[in-house]
Amino acid sequence: MDNMTFVLFGATGDLAKRKIYPALYNLYREGRMPEKISVVGLGRREYTDSKLQSVIKEALESFSRREVEPSGLEEFLEKFRYCIFDATKPESYDKLHQFIKDRESELDIPDNRLFYLSVAPTLIKTITEGLHESGISSNAGWKRLMVEKPFGSDLVTARDLNKKLKEVFTEDEIFRIDHYLGKPMVQKLESLVHANPMLKALLDHDQISNVQITASETVGVGTRAAYYDQAGAIRDMVQNHLLQLVMMTALYNPDKMSTSEIEAEKRGIMESLKPITKENMEENVVRGQYAAGQIEGQAVPAYLEEAGVAEDSNNDTFFAARLEIDNENWRGIPFYIRTGKRMKKKSTRIVVEFKCDGDEEALKDDGIEPNLLIIEINPNESMTLKINIKNQSEEKFEPEYITFSNVSATQPEAYELLLHDAMQGNETFFAHWKEVELSWKWVQPLLDEFEKDGLPLYKYPAGSDGPEEAHHLLKEDGHQWWYV
Amino acid sequence: MDNMTFVLFGATGDLAKRKIYPALYNLYREGRMPEKISVVGLGRREYTDSKLQSVIKEALESFSRREVEPSGLEEFLEKFRYCIFDATKPESYDKLHQFIKDRESELDIPDNRLFYLSVAPTLIKTITEGLHESGISSNAGWKRLMVEKPFGSDLVTARDLNKKLKEVFTEDEIFRIDHYLGKPMVQKLESLVHANPMLKALLDHDQISNVQITASETVGVGTRAAYYDQAGAIRDMVQNHLLQLVMMTALYNPDKMSTSEIEAEKRGIMESLKPITKENMEENVVRGQYAAGQIEGQAVPAYLEEAGVAEDSNNDTFFAARLEIDNENWRGIPFYIRTGKRMKKKSTRIVVEFKCDGDEEALKDDGIEPNLLIIEINPNESMTLKINIKNQSEEKFEPEYITFSNVSATQPEAYELLLHDAMQGNETFFAHWKEVELSWKWVQPLLDEFEKDGLPLYKYPAGSDGPEEAHHLLKEDGHQWWYV
Repeated sequence: MDNMTFVLFGATGDLAKRKIYPALYNLYREGRMPEKISVVGLGRREYTDSKLQSVIKEALESFSRREVEPSGLEEFLEKFRYCIFDATKPESYDKLHQFIKDRESELDIPDNRLFYLSVAPTLIKTITEGLHESGISSNAGWKRLMVEKPFGSDLVTARDLNKKLKEVFTEDEIFRIDHYLGKPMVQKLESLVHANPMLKALLDHDQISNVQITASETVGVGTRAAYYDQAGAIRDMVQNHLLQLVMMTALYNPDKMSTSEIEAEKRGIMESLKPITKENMEENVVRGQYAAGQIEGQAVPAYLEEAGVAEDSNNDTFFAARLEIDNENWRGIPFYIRTGKRMKKKSTRIVVEFKCDGDEEALKDDGIEPNLLIIEINPNESMTLKINIKNQSEEKFEPEYITFSNVSATQPEAYELLLHDAMQGNETFFAHWKEVELSWKWVQPLLDEFEKDGLPLYKYPAGSDGPEEAHHLLKEDGHQWWYV
Repeated sequence: MDNMTFVLFGATGDLAKRKIYPALYNLYREGRMPEKISVVGLGRREYTDSKLQSVIKEALESFSRREVEPSGLEEFLEKFRYCIFDATKPESYDKLHQFIKDRESELDIPDNRLFYLSVAPTLIKTITEGLHESGISSNAGWKRLMVEKPFGSDLVTARDLNKKLKEVFTEDEIFRIDHYLGKPMVQKLESLVHANPMLKALLDHDQISNVQITASETVGVGTRAAYYDQAGAIRDMVQNHLLQLVMMTALYNPDKMSTSEIEAEKRGIMESLKPITKENMEENVVRGQYAAGQIEGQAVPAYLEEAGVAEDSNNDTFFAARLEIDNENWRGIPFYIRTGKRMKKKSTRIVVEFKCDGDEEALKDDGIEPNLLIIEINPNESMTLKINIKNQSEEKFEPEYITFSNVSATQPEAYELLLHDAMQGNETFFAHWKEVELSWKWVQPLLDEFEKDGLPLYKYPAGSDGPEEAHHLLKEDGHQWWYV
């Protein structure tokens, strides 16, 4: 791996402490870092290098999956320097430029530069311009930009943001983070069929009845009301994470794929996704907002009573939809997606339901339930096959759950994998522009209609599994949601 | 279940104590017995009813998988009566007839009669004749005959035996026991695809590279030399158990099958089994005999040094072969079978190896091994899928073993299932005559050649995995035995 400078905008922020420092530490412990790396943390606070280093040490002690060991810790922290920085002031960039160059010559490393923008969305354009104008991004070595979500707030703003970034970075240099793509279980999807030829036939479209993707949370809007009441579930979860999970699930390809092949496949899937129009929206989409209720026996308020939420807010905290991918592999197989806050259970999972041939009643009498492939992404990571095994004494079948991968304890965290990939310049598990654009395009008619209150907003009690209408969506097709 | 009389020939024998009484007891405990049943135990010893009952009680305490509970034990033992019996004396049958009839009227049950012959093979014909001549088997109710292996010692004697039985019983009334067919894991094979439609494609012949069936033992010939030195592995294991496992594995049918459909399928498989001829025998068959060696660190003698074995015996204690089922499902997919005494490990298992498409070297470099479905029958019962899962940190694949059924503790024993089926008149898991005949027919050329020493007899050290030649058999095809 090339020696490099890692420039972290937002070094004193929450994400840095919870995710980025622990990820870097675990990569360091595994020897998966460049031999020499200069990490420059930026923030408005008046920190010293040693203050930053002690903040990092605390962060590791709280959040690292590996316990912090004294041995090597000093060497790790020694890689970090702090530079006071105000993104809105041009002189900040000049100072930063000199700072970076000084460390490069001090460490004798080439001017390869990875910029990580863990900042408010409004600052992304400003910083990118600043990097350009100051010459920081006109280095001779390589340069890369990592950006956090949200990537725009609708199709127009996303396109505008992308255009700005493209003035300074090429598509190959932009690493748009969707941390769902960093989750090991999601990454395994891409290679599952290739590595297990026998699964090729199993996951053939002829065999699949429907696919269900759920991302449910038990938490409410919390302290994020200012953002969330504008964004809603549709922007917070659907446009990015859920559609990425749809793409990764639909990525049926038995061959070993290169990054560009994966990118092309995902784009093809988004292009094949049947548009939701004003006309077919009500039959395919269910929008909800949580009312008061109970979570684990604890009374919790309605969304409208939450601090920071407009008292007449029509914002969605729940979203469910029936999707169809109109390509050869998936035509006729519905993809159901749903996400919600204040649901009964915290769970992100993909369920592939297999077809049950034969007489449905007879199968039911024998105790035969549909076979399922259950890919659990959160809170645990596992793959499970639900299979029917005969109980010889009872002369009946009973479902058994076969968990064939459940490896959270030793699995790297999403940010470790994503940072490592970005350091190597591997874009496989980042959101490519075309996917992002096509996702916004698919979502845009919904945003427009939601804005106008063109679709009913169903209330559901906190602690439930969402509005009744989300169940009707599947019942109409003769299906049911498997698990919450 | 009909009320009935269960007539047990060989009531004081080893099989009765180890298997039959415990099986009856466990069926009783589960309420899977006729409401009223008269069990008549027969033997030459001068037992009283209460002596038999105390022998049964001891047997249960030693061999029942369920612990014996005082409650209900009296009621269970009360079903048993003892009748002194000499199979060679006609008057014995008349006495037995009266004995059975007396109990029938005492218990007020119809004259349904199930005869279980747990006796030396030489007595089977004698007893069947006696039943007929005495009129015991001329009852108005139903009659059934359960017979233990061996069923003949070659094609001629098997046909002869069957002809004798058929003079008294119809095919539907004969229950030929192959206790491998009673094992729950073997029985599950029949319904696996039907109950799990998604497996249909998985177990499709296009996907399978080869099938391997192993039945290895660590024990030597023990006290059975008188029988075994005549029979050899070929009669003791291959003609019956291994060929039944071949049939059950090849029984690929996604539909729910009736007994007669299963019978027809199995017969079809045996009819499609390519004959072994004098000409192709040496390339497809490996015959072995154990030399001295070590089992778990303990020195053990060679077969030729065992008590009761002829000092120049050319008997086989190991057998391996390459089989081909020349039908639409299995054409071109080799079935390798092997069995041996004094092998490294006690294990009966079926391994289905799936094809690995693509560049073999590249797959190997990535750590991708062939997918396997491993069905373990003995000593544990389980089904396991060997699958390759990506280790995201190492960027390599690693095999994982997914055991999706491992249920020995609560599983019924083979004899419970077989007795229960016979009491119900269900022949599904018994060896039908056509299968037996076709098995002997397939085996006969081998018997002839072995008799003439027409095939090399390779020595293998006790505690090994058989002669080297058994490995060559697979290597020639580019395969390897998976596990011992």
